[in-house]
Amino acid sequence: MGNADHSYDPSFNDNYYGSANHRVEIPPPQPFVKSIKNTLKETFFPDDPLRQFKNQPPRKKLVLGFQYIFPILEWGPRYTLEFLKADLIAGITIASLAIPQGISYAKLANLPPILGLYSSFVPPLVYAVMGSSRDLAVGTVAVGSLLTGSMLSEVVSPTDDPKLYLHLAFTATFFAGLFEASLGIFRLGFIVDFLSHATIVGFMGGAATVVCLQQLKGILGLDHFTHATDIISVMRSVFTQTHSWRWESAVLGCVFLFYLLLSRYFSKMKPKLFWVSAMAPLTSVVLGSLLVYFTHAEKHGVQVIGDLKKGINPASLMDLNFDSRYLTGTIKTGIVTGIIALAEGIAVGRSFAMFKNYHIDGNKEMIAFGMMNIAGSCTSCYLTAGPFSRSAVNFNAGCKTAVSNLVMAFAVMITLLFLTPLFYYTPLVVLSSIIVAAMLGLIDYEAAIHLWHVDKFDFLVCMSAYIGVVFANIEIGLGLAIGLSIMRVLLFVARPKTLVLGNLPDSKVYRSVDQYQNATNVPGVLILEIDSPIYFANSNYLRERISRWINDEEDKLKSSGETVLQYVVLDMSAVGNIDTSGISMLDEVKKTADRRGLKLALVNPGAEVMKKLNKSNFLEKIGQEWIFLTVGEAVGACNYMLHSCNIESQKHSNNIV
Amino acid sequence: MGNADHSYDPSFNDNYYGSANHRVEIPPPQPFVKSIKNTLKETFFPDDPLRQFKNQPPRKKLVLGFQYIFPILEWGPRYTLEFLKADLIAGITIASLAIPQGISYAKLANLPPILGLYSSFVPPLVYAVMGSSRDLAVGTVAVGSLLTGSMLSEVVSPTDDPKLYLHLAFTATFFAGLFEASLGIFRLGFIVDFLSHATIVGFMGGAATVVCLQQLKGILGLDHFTHATDIISVMRSVFTQTHSWRWESAVLGCVFLFYLLLSRYFSKMKPKLFWVSAMAPLTSVVLGSLLVYFTHAEKHGVQVIGDLKKGINPASLMDLNFDSRYLTGTIKTGIVTGIIALAEGIAVGRSFAMFKNYHIDGNKEMIAFGMMNIAGSCTSCYLTAGPFSRSAVNFNAGCKTAVSNLVMAFAVMITLLFLTPLFYYTPLVVLSSIIVAAMLGLIDYEAAIHLWHVDKFDFLVCMSAYIGVVFANIEIGLGLAIGLSIMRVLLFVARPKTLVLGNLPDSKVYRSVDQYQNATNVPGVLILEIDSPIYFANSNYLRERISRWINDEEDKLKSSGETVLQYVVLDMSAVGNIDTSGISMLDEVKKTADRRGLKLALVNPGAEVMKKLNKSNFLEKIGQEWIFLTVGEAVGACNYMLHSCNIESQKHSNNIV
Repeated sequence: MGNADHSYDPSFNDNYYGSANHRVEIPPPQPFVKSIKNTLKETFFPDDPLRQFKNQPPRKKLVLGFQYIFPILEWGPRYTLEFLKADLIAGITIASLAIPQGISYAKLANLPPILGLYSSFVPPLVYAVMGSSRDLAVGTVAVGSLLTGSMLSEVVSPTDDPKLYLHLAFTATFFAGLFEASLGIFRLGFIVDFLSHATIVGFMGGAATVVCLQQLKGILGLDHFTHATDIISVMRSVFTQTHSWRWESAVLGCVFLFYLLLSRYFSKMKPKLFWVSAMAPLTSVVLGSLLVYFTHAEKHGVQVIGDLKKGINPASLMDLNFDSRYLTGTIKTGIVTGIIALAEGIAVGRSFAMFKNYHIDGNKEMIAFGMMNIAGSCTSCYLTAGPFSRSAVNFNAGCKTAVSNLVMAFAVMITLLFLTPLFYYTPLVVLSSIIVAAMLGLIDYEAAIHLWHVDKFDFLVCMSAYIGVVFANIEIGLGLAIGLSIMRVLLFVARPKTLVLGNLPDSKVYRSVDQYQNATNVPGVLILEIDSPIYFANSNYLRERISRWINDEEDKLKSSGETVLQYVVLDMSAVGNIDTSGISMLDEVKKTADRRGLKLALVNPGAEVMKKLNKSNFLEKIGQEWIFLTVGEAVGACNYMLHSCNIESQKHSNNIV
Repeated sequence: MGNADHSYDPSFNDNYYGSANHRVEIPPPQPFVKSIKNTLKETFFPDDPLRQFKNQPPRKKLVLGFQYIFPILEWGPRYTLEFLKADLIAGITIASLAIPQGISYAKLANLPPILGLYSSFVPPLVYAVMGSSRDLAVGTVAVGSLLTGSMLSEVVSPTDDPKLYLHLAFTATFFAGLFEASLGIFRLGFIVDFLSHATIVGFMGGAATVVCLQQLKGILGLDHFTHATDIISVMRSVFTQTHSWRWESAVLGCVFLFYLLLSRYFSKMKPKLFWVSAMAPLTSVVLGSLLVYFTHAEKHGVQVIGDLKKGINPASLMDLNFDSRYLTGTIKTGIVTGIIALAEGIAVGRSFAMFKNYHIDGNKEMIAFGMMNIAGSCTSCYLTAGPFSRSAVNFNAGCKTAVSNLVMAFAVMITLLFLTPLFYYTPLVVLSSIIVAAMLGLIDYEAAIHLWHVDKFDFLVCMSAYIGVVFANIEIGLGLAIGLSIMRVLLFVARPKTLVLGNLPDSKVYRSVDQYQNATNVPGVLILEIDSPIYFANSNYLRERISRWINDEEDKLKSSGETVLQYVVLDMSAVGNIDTSGISMLDEVKKTADRRGLKLALVNPGAEVMKKLNKSNFLEKIGQEWIFLTVGEAVGACNYMLHSCNIESQKHSNNIV
């Protein structure tokens, strides 16, 4: 039964729509303080971290509090020997990856190679105590290292004044830690959410490309190289000095790269053999070092690491440099690298937590990351986070808890104390190969293709991040992608969808005529759904769009010569909120409708909207009886009135006759 | 009949929900180019300006095109003598206001007073030809003048190099015009919409306060005055030179201010006597000048305007200064003043168009504003727009078309040609009184109170704009308010509402249990409504929030010991769009639900959402049969399955027995 043209009887609504005894309710007024408190809670404590503290005795609360800050207190007492076995294996595996990676990444940041080892010692200890992920392996990250290198080089040259540069790197790490910890403490973790998946895919891919390009220096054995990171400068730098390419270096690099990629391919085919790929970097380092040692290749154009100082991290608290000349630079570097490190680390932690079905508290993670970087900055470490490659190896190696990080730290400590001389003959080109192999895994072209299929705009964001990073620089690429992402959100709010609803045959359900081909219009009634909150940013647009819909509908009816438009029904179900500009807009729509002889009805405004419509007296203006609970009811009422008007006018004309 | 626990029969859905033969439809795929075209059209041509050109012969199209660019061609031919009478009266009235206001505002911009007269001559002529408002009176604006003054003074001192300063003012006006016209031509008018009503109320109030404070210089007859605009600097400047306060000047100022306010009060009481208040500024000027002329007060500490050059606007095209030293400053001034002038002018035009029920095309207005400022910058005018006070007088005086602007321009021309010497003795203090009187009308404290009542956040935005402008400076106040407004939009997207729905008694309607006190939960089924599009900015939040709702519901059910939770129904009616991060979020929610033994159902996803869920294979994962058209259907299906499961398990246990 279509309800567009049935006759009306007074009990009709009750029987047919079954909700005529319900009205759209204005929620009971809330005290101002309480509503502010609720809003703040939803904004800053959406995960309700204090939930477990409810209804507990004070002693228990204290214990829970300590466990909250130091998760080790929670899982430590339940730690078993079996766990230890698994963590030992995982820890040694990631240490074998951490040592060559640490040395390589430090070079990306223009820092002494030994800093990469230092940074795999202290920060993992801090994270093991404070972090809530069981799978994250702590260490320096390629993108963070590159960013540190390129941003700090603008402040001071790493070759002209390496000591100052080193101190500024500690200071930037300190600020990164401070910034990360404050984000967590002030529960502003959601700022990281503004880096969308698409942004991260594009940015990581771009950064990986840039890092690979930088390795051309090591692989070709060049002495001079551009400080810029964009592809054009790098290519110019490479091809203007073809005369100084070293074939020994290039051959060595390609062989090791091939070996590393092959071992990864092999491990991918048989996940049980994860250790083949995990051990490959260390094997490369050993093989490369032996090769150089026996062939004396260091005298024939193959650059080697050279002396590494023995001993664990020296203190660097006194090296922090707060000189006002460099302060802007270090703070900026700290904030940018800190947030990028966080975004990567938390995304990595979350994805592994997903697999094992446990929960990661983003804000707590930020505090852990922040504390580990603050501690790191005082013990000669630079920026650390949770690199994806190392964490994936950790996960595949079967780690159970953060103890694998402790094991890794211990192994690195042993290396620092006794084994550093062994790296004297390690060729730089092997390190470059290790970096390239790791980076190629970060260029996720499949994800980009997926974005193109599902969401063209996300693809645009992704590509602009990639192109920005590769052709301009890292900051520009990142800024571009974040800007586009935010513009998209703003554009969504500025240009909300308005949909014309029609009646699905033989039902009282009203849906968009665009989506449902068989939905039919109700004669004389225009039903519009507004698909977003009504805010200052869209109220002008909505006013114009609604009047355009009315014009279109009137034109259509005029040309078909059937009925005239008499009712406009606005379905407000999807309008989550409204501000004062939005209320003025509704006011104006109402006035325009009145002037054109149309009746305006609202359907199902939400609690917030009803509250504000009531406070601003709009409810009085439109009349409570023009606010309906469902579209069906509103259409029913319109039809009833259309009908009774016809009868009235018939009666009237009868009387006249 | 509650539908929470009824028994199920196969035809049940058809009878009761009346829509079982409808499924949620995936909209037919659109070619990429077409969907891009649609999006661009909605974004840039929401008002469909080309509508009238459809199906017209080419000749007619040409005529319509000209009429579109020059609205005078449209209304000109229909102009009548009656209109002319009305426009004459209105034009002369606004001219009498324009002359003293023009001189006063030019002083606000640190420019020679004669520029205020020039600026009331050429721009109105341009606007009369190109503008689409019938009520807007064109001229210089207080806030724009103050902004020009304060921003340009930072580039070059108006006292040290007045000529350069003047030329930069022309250049800034040129850029303002260029910027305004480009916004209109590229249909970017919606940028102005990001200045919300609350922002404008606060900003205008703050600017008016600042302008009033600046008048203390004129009223107290001070020679030296601070260049800063913040209240603290101004107060310090006023109270450190109490010894140079001139009582003659102060008394004169207060008397005229009292007269002006009184006349306004009078006109407000009796709107017919609008001319009393409209003529008051000119009367004050005449009275003040006569007073000075006869008492020779200019020799006793009352400053006067002095010589004004006779003759109409000299050309200034060659004075435009594109020197790279000043370019950043002039471009910045041009953009900021241009957008503020636009926001005020368009808001004023729209509100009067509302009263008279005609339409104003924002983008067309921007082109008109832009052209009039470009023309102005070449003819010795500075920034012009549509000041509220003058337009209100124009409206009250009964103007019919833009001809009133032509009349005003003619009257100003006569003044420029013959009457400028009459202003020699006009005391500056009278001009200050005129400004203060006009500004007090702009401090709309009633609107601020209204904001507080209806929307606390809008009030916060308004007050931050006000306080920022008064205590820091105009740009900071504006930046603060726009930043807060945009933050609000982002926060809305980052923290969308999720509502628990319940069944309204004796109906199949499901509504928020917070808003409807009598809505009841369906045992074993958790129904959640998501109130915004699902984007990268909120997908993490939503995942956490949904799992918190599930936890809460399970805890509640556990403590009451009734049923266990078995179904989670997500009502997607209000989810206008989704991006790839959002789809991953749904994916994760589905996985979590599976792991907890819960079934996930979606209700009524829109066209965009269905399209993307389909493309990303989420539909296959969740199963088409778990997507329902209405909440009622979803709950019905859940209940049916709960029921049949019970029967199954009963059967099962019977068999075992």
